[in-house]
Amino acid sequence: MERIYLDNNATTIVDPAVRDAMEPFYCHMYGNPNSLHSFGIEVRPYLHQAMEQLYTGINAADEDDIVINSCATEGNNTVILGFYFNLLKDTRKKHIITTQLEHPCIRESCRYLETHGVKVTYLAPDHDGMITAEAVREAITDQTALVSVMWANNETGLILPIKEIAEVCRERGVYLHTDAVQAIGKIKVDVQEVPVDFLTFSAHKFHGPKGVGGLYIRNGVSLPPLLHGGEQMGGRRAGTVDVPGMVAMGKAMELANQHLAFEQTEVRRLRDKLEDALLKIDDVLVVGKRELRTPNTVYVSIRGVEGEALIWDLNQNGIAASTGSACASESLEASPILTAIGADKELAHTGVRLSLSRFTTEQEIDFTIYTISKAVMRLRQLSTSY
Amino acid sequence: MERIYLDNNATTIVDPAVRDAMEPFYCHMYGNPNSLHSFGIEVRPYLHQAMEQLYTGINAADEDDIVINSCATEGNNTVILGFYFNLLKDTRKKHIITTQLEHPCIRESCRYLETHGVKVTYLAPDHDGMITAEAVREAITDQTALVSVMWANNETGLILPIKEIAEVCRERGVYLHTDAVQAIGKIKVDVQEVPVDFLTFSAHKFHGPKGVGGLYIRNGVSLPPLLHGGEQMGGRRAGTVDVPGMVAMGKAMELANQHLAFEQTEVRRLRDKLEDALLKIDDVLVVGKRELRTPNTVYVSIRGVEGEALIWDLNQNGIAASTGSACASESLEASPILTAIGADKELAHTGVRLSLSRFTTEQEIDFTIYTISKAVMRLRQLSTSY
Ligand SMILES: Cc1ncc(COP(=O)(O)O)c(C=O)c1O
Ligand SMILES: Cc1ncc(COP(=O)(O)O)c(C=O)c1O
Repeated sequence: MERIYLDNNATTIVDPAVRDAMEPFYCHMYGNPNSLHSFGIEVRPYLHQAMEQLYTGINAADEDDIVINSCATEGNNTVILGFYFNLLKDTRKKHIITTQLEHPCIRESCRYLETHGVKVTYLAPDHDGMITAEAVREAITDQTALVSVMWANNETGLILPIKEIAEVCRERGVYLHTDAVQAIGKIKVDVQEVPVDFLTFSAHKFHGPKGVGGLYIRNGVSLPPLLHGGEQMGGRRAGTVDVPGMVAMGKAMELANQHLAFEQTEVRRLRDKLEDALLKIDDVLVVGKRELRTPNTVYVSIRGVEGEALIWDLNQNGIAASTGSACASESLEASPILTAIGADKELAHTGVRLSLSRFTTEQEIDFTIYTISKAVMRLRQLSTSY
Repeated sequence: MERIYLDNNATTIVDPAVRDAMEPFYCHMYGNPNSLHSFGIEVRPYLHQAMEQLYTGINAADEDDIVINSCATEGNNTVILGFYFNLLKDTRKKHIITTQLEHPCIRESCRYLETHGVKVTYLAPDHDGMITAEAVREAITDQTALVSVMWANNETGLILPIKEIAEVCRERGVYLHTDAVQAIGKIKVDVQEVPVDFLTFSAHKFHGPKGVGGLYIRNGVSLPPLLHGGEQMGGRRAGTVDVPGMVAMGKAMELANQHLAFEQTEVRRLRDKLEDALLKIDDVLVVGKRELRTPNTVYVSIRGVEGEALIWDLNQNGIAASTGSACASESLEASPILTAIGADKELAHTGVRLSLSRFTTEQEIDFTIYTISKAVMRLRQLSTSY
């Protein structure tokens, strides 16, 4: 059975061109770029090229930094814990603002800092599942050191008003971090247009490999490293550079940018087709206005159909989907986003996320529509509450 | 020109069998192991197998933890910074003991903590380049929370008396961390026989890929994560699991263990052959007794021959060697180890490290001997001081 992968917000297939780009660096050009001999020197132009692809990808200025690390979780922790170390020195500023929509790696690092005396505000999404710039403005105090708001949400695909939030932060002289994991490759990410101070991404979310990510740091902004030792990344992230990973991420970023238009047209068209079909089923709710979402994501709640049960049914038919963020898949909490938009208790466990990619085909979407419709009928018949 | 790679302490070629093992996880089995569908589920047995290979490799007990991370630098920082967070809660214990021989990632993370009020003792090597258990014992006070001593030194290959140090730490109730980066694959590493509490390693030092490493934590020992968020690694290290990296590291560990005897016989024989030839040159000094070193490493000082110059000469002839740790290659400090063993000032910049691997051949060593002899003659003729 050919399988269908609609869980691209959890992780993505590595583009074969990306795999080909990294291949030479395992058994042939395996030197450490810090070495002074030919094995070390020969890899440097490839790293340079990768950096250029990344800078171009997010339109960073030459003077800005992009620190290569192991994943967005590392990038996010570097920013949050790094601020803690900064805060230790400045006893006045002990406040961080973030949102309830963030990925657990932001939430948990903030929670950890709370146990060490940092004050954290977790902004709740409004009835549209959104965080407004106004809400951020109201939360800022004289003590606020950092605001961390994601660019796009992993569960719903909702795009947050990060440009307006950046303006508020600038105005108030507060640093802004954005988790752009779900934005890269789906919508335009431009740090000139949207003046954030820190921005994180993970290669495996845009058809690069797992285990490599990036942290953008605006020129002039200070942040202690999380990994100390060694002069790699200008002293901002120690550790032997993951040469194949970095080359791969550069290539993946380049391809992501080349496909942005395709994402906005073709991927969006298939997502909309799927979404329209879902909305034809009775008692179905899709979270967030279509225009406000990344083009590849639909988060749906189907009354009388438990999310886990539908996922399982789809899986039996070779279709991979998710109940939300992969990290939370094994927990059985009610969806915070469904709670936020005011869905009743009965809907709390109905959320299902379908996330497409540029590798998704029309036939796959047609088969998925057919399979979901059948599954919903079956599961509703079994349901005691519907 | 066929090149010769004698810089295996900086990084190693990926064993083709390791590359083959990771290959399927890019474009075929690319799921996130946390996912509940077939793409996620199908990778889990491979991760399980990798874990078993790692546990077997260092003889960890089932109840112990091995946390997969991005490199030894991350592992080392996790231990050092983690202790800081622990120390914050226990105002009594504010002292860490380490050595001057450690890799910069230990040294710099400790230095960073000094700026935040932690007291650190950096034990100096004795005239043999060694750290004795006695020196550790003498440095321990009631305030000591952690001792961090490497298992084998990257520059000289010297194997430290980690078993005796472990006994001292046990006796005094102090936690012991060891950086085993240069020990894995070269000598037996057994955490039952040598009761350390934490142990770090990096796959790319034993023919695995760059960008993946491991942190062993003994059962019952508490350490906060450095990367918060997500339930991966039992909550000890968040971030989407680098599936190909983890599979590769497991395979690399298995192969490393299979080749341990080969390392002790064949690699050692070639290293000794090279070393004997070097010692036949006048005014040559090798650091550390042969029996006390890892079988692949020789660190040599040749009077009248600047290390950098020799490296360059060798590189012109296709031979890759190093002046010491790759991270320090771009700095021009005098070798701390040469200083420690009491070498005169004239020798401070003469250190050259040649590090072999199981892929090194006899012809390569013969050609290297020939090339070094010629280079030394040439460089000594140019020397104003010799
Ligand atoms: C002894 C030792 N510790 C730690 C490291 C750091 O390893 P990595 O760069 O893979 O984090 C190295 C290698 O550079 C090393 O030789
Ligand atoms: C919004 C968001 N941030 C951060 C992450 C963490 O990425 P990684 O697991 O690659 O560190 C994810 C993915 O799980 C995510 O969706």
